[in-house]
Amino acid sequence: MTAAHHSVVDVIRTKRDRGELTDEQIRWVLDAYVRGTVADEQVAALLMAVLLNGLDARELSTWTSAMIESGERLDLSALSRPTVDKHSTGGVGDKVSLVLAPLVASCGAAVPQLSGRGLGHTGGTLDKLESIPGWRAALTNEEIVAQLESVGCVICAAGAGLAPADRKLYALRDVTATVESIPLIAASIMSKKIAEGTAALVLDVKVGTGAFMPDRERTMVGLGTAHSVETVALLTSMDTPLGRTAGNALEVREAEAVLEGGGPPDLVEVTLALAGEMLARCGIHDDPAARLADGSARATYRAMIAAQGGDPDAELPTASHVRAVPAARDGVVRRLDARAVGVAAWRLGAGRARKEDPVSPTAGVVCVRKPGEVVAAGEPVVELHTDDATTLEAALAALADAIEIGDAPAAAPLVLERVAV
Amino acid sequence: MTAAHHSVVDVIRTKRDRGELTDEQIRWVLDAYVRGTVADEQVAALLMAVLLNGLDARELSTWTSAMIESGERLDLSALSRPTVDKHSTGGVGDKVSLVLAPLVASCGAAVPQLSGRGLGHTGGTLDKLESIPGWRAALTNEEIVAQLESVGCVICAAGAGLAPADRKLYALRDVTATVESIPLIAASIMSKKIAEGTAALVLDVKVGTGAFMPDRERTMVGLGTAHSVETVALLTSMDTPLGRTAGNALEVREAEAVLEGGGPPDLVEVTLALAGEMLARCGIHDDPAARLADGSARATYRAMIAAQGGDPDAELPTASHVRAVPAARDGVVRRLDARAVGVAAWRLGAGRARKEDPVSPTAGVVCVRKPGEVVAAGEPVVELHTDDATTLEAALAALADAIEIGDAPAAAPLVLERVAV
Repeated sequence: MTAAHHSVVDVIRTKRDRGELTDEQIRWVLDAYVRGTVADEQVAALLMAVLLNGLDARELSTWTSAMIESGERLDLSALSRPTVDKHSTGGVGDKVSLVLAPLVASCGAAVPQLSGRGLGHTGGTLDKLESIPGWRAALTNEEIVAQLESVGCVICAAGAGLAPADRKLYALRDVTATVESIPLIAASIMSKKIAEGTAALVLDVKVGTGAFMPDRERTMVGLGTAHSVETVALLTSMDTPLGRTAGNALEVREAEAVLEGGGPPDLVEVTLALAGEMLARCGIHDDPAARLADGSARATYRAMIAAQGGDPDAELPTASHVRAVPAARDGVVRRLDARAVGVAAWRLGAGRARKEDPVSPTAGVVCVRKPGEVVAAGEPVVELHTDDATTLEAALAALADAIEIGDAPAAAPLVLERVAV
Repeated sequence: MTAAHHSVVDVIRTKRDRGELTDEQIRWVLDAYVRGTVADEQVAALLMAVLLNGLDARELSTWTSAMIESGERLDLSALSRPTVDKHSTGGVGDKVSLVLAPLVASCGAAVPQLSGRGLGHTGGTLDKLESIPGWRAALTNEEIVAQLESVGCVICAAGAGLAPADRKLYALRDVTATVESIPLIAASIMSKKIAEGTAALVLDVKVGTGAFMPDRERTMVGLGTAHSVETVALLTSMDTPLGRTAGNALEVREAEAVLEGGGPPDLVEVTLALAGEMLARCGIHDDPAARLADGSARATYRAMIAAQGGDPDAELPTASHVRAVPAARDGVVRRLDARAVGVAAWRLGAGRARKEDPVSPTAGVVCVRKPGEVVAAGEPVVELHTDDATTLEAALAALADAIEIGDAPAAAPLVLERVAV
């Protein structure tokens, strides 16, 4: 038996028996895993033991550091602007980043928004922006830094060099039922955000109706703070889609409407709440609502699109098939379920089931009526957009129980809780 | 994602969340693992969840059945004799099988003792018998059945066809810190014993001093019974080596002394206790002590050795180097630690660290004095036997704290507890 064999079994056994891993054990095992000298099956057993027996604050901080140290780290310290980023746990119709990054940049911050691709029923910000002709997600580190200095914001793909341990661990967690672990989720999100070099971070945590226990948010906020990234979390409602659209080009168009001073009020409210937190984190005293109103956020958005090869004046593609889903009765929309709308948009072609799948720029769902709005029987509640008419039936099926029309609206706040240290 | 991907993640998640696996899930996942369509890392995560969250009696019974069904099963139902086997959890100087199998066979039972190789500081029965010139451990299933009919007993290697799931699972457990799980240990032992076709089974569970919780034994007895194998467990003492020898040829010679009517009393006592249980399990009313005394057990032993190519009259090899370890004072041996003697024998060459290592037939330890016996200062307490003098220092080091000599003996029973349904 090799030394490595002995050591990794000891590490697994320690966590299995509810012991504390030493910093040296954590750094060693994650480094050995990335280098390939510790096997997938050994790390799978360790991850299950972590999921069931937990990591304490010190272990989790070291685990996250080790993931960061597995790759390169962007150095944004030479920028003339303070850096701040936002991370969303992913919601249906969540096009907030498209407005927020240029908005906060137009107030004087640098926003390095390095993102992943969408998977499943919540779309990815990169997929949305790729519906803009010419726009590209892949930038070099030098291009990222230069654009942050010149434009103030960048939304691009996180390079393979950032926290490579996370990519390898995430793929393993996905096939071993070890995704749903608060410390592993927190380490995955925070390692990438810390490696991207931001000095402050606002987490937008999407939550459904009913009770919620913000343990995960407290863990992430603590982890950011432990790594000198000033972090705060807002828990925002995801009972119904944010804004009126879920899809790629559909959401870009809606984000652009907000940047032009219009757009749906819920999207504006959440965006301004997050912008206020981000600006407070980096000590900038400016009024983001004024930057929406005076067009400076829009100018920054157009500069960001153009800097990444996109044509901000290009026509966005539209779907060849649009099918309306009519109201079954007169009344007020009481419920329009976010998850069902997300699944419908995904089935229409807006999302992907596998990493390597393409997405349709035009597919998606438009919420013609949102909760609280009056509708007459037969009028459309939602519209399904797609270039592939064969997807319509599956999308309709996803919406079967998603719409509830009643006599009185059900009101709910958008920002539910704020978690800070 | 494939159907298999979904299913195995669901199986892992169920056990992770303390749910009960269905019989269909258990059979499917073990079958898919043996066929290679479920990956090591997925089963590793499942094994850790099983270790931490357990299996109930139904799950464990199905798990064991699935391991049996992963391979072939010997059919001993056509034999004219009732079948009964013994399994030992492994002790130092445990040469009981060499006497017990022919003894019980000489009383009229058929004893199909299919064994594995030794690993670590407790030797394997096959390794011991291989010190007899010509004797071979590998038999075909047809040879096993024929020898059980003609001689009444066989001690041979368990073929690769029996419970192949166990071999694959054991190798995985070894590198993922999932060995120490009562249900997984019980399934591993019992799947092989049930697949070998015995109708009854006596477990010889070696235990050290102090408190013990026979949960594992209760689990194994219940599992055997659930699979129609009448099973009982004896917990026997392993504070000190059984008999006076630990090694390969050394132990064969001592076993042969018992078959000749002599040998160390502790070895005789444990062997007769186990023989009584085995005979009771298959309804044979005979006196095993009489079969030792009248030479019929010895005759069966010689027939068994000869049937497997061995020469029962051949000289056994002896070591070229013998080093005595003298008593430090006059007195009575109070303690001679079994584990330390086992490690010393292993370092002298009697055992192996890796499956593929060879073992020395001659190496081992002779206990010249055992606990309760008087010794004078300077007289040997143990002797170290080896053909490789360079191993002596390491063996001596293993014995550094193993011998305690005092003024009065410390008495302890040999058979500590009996576990039946």
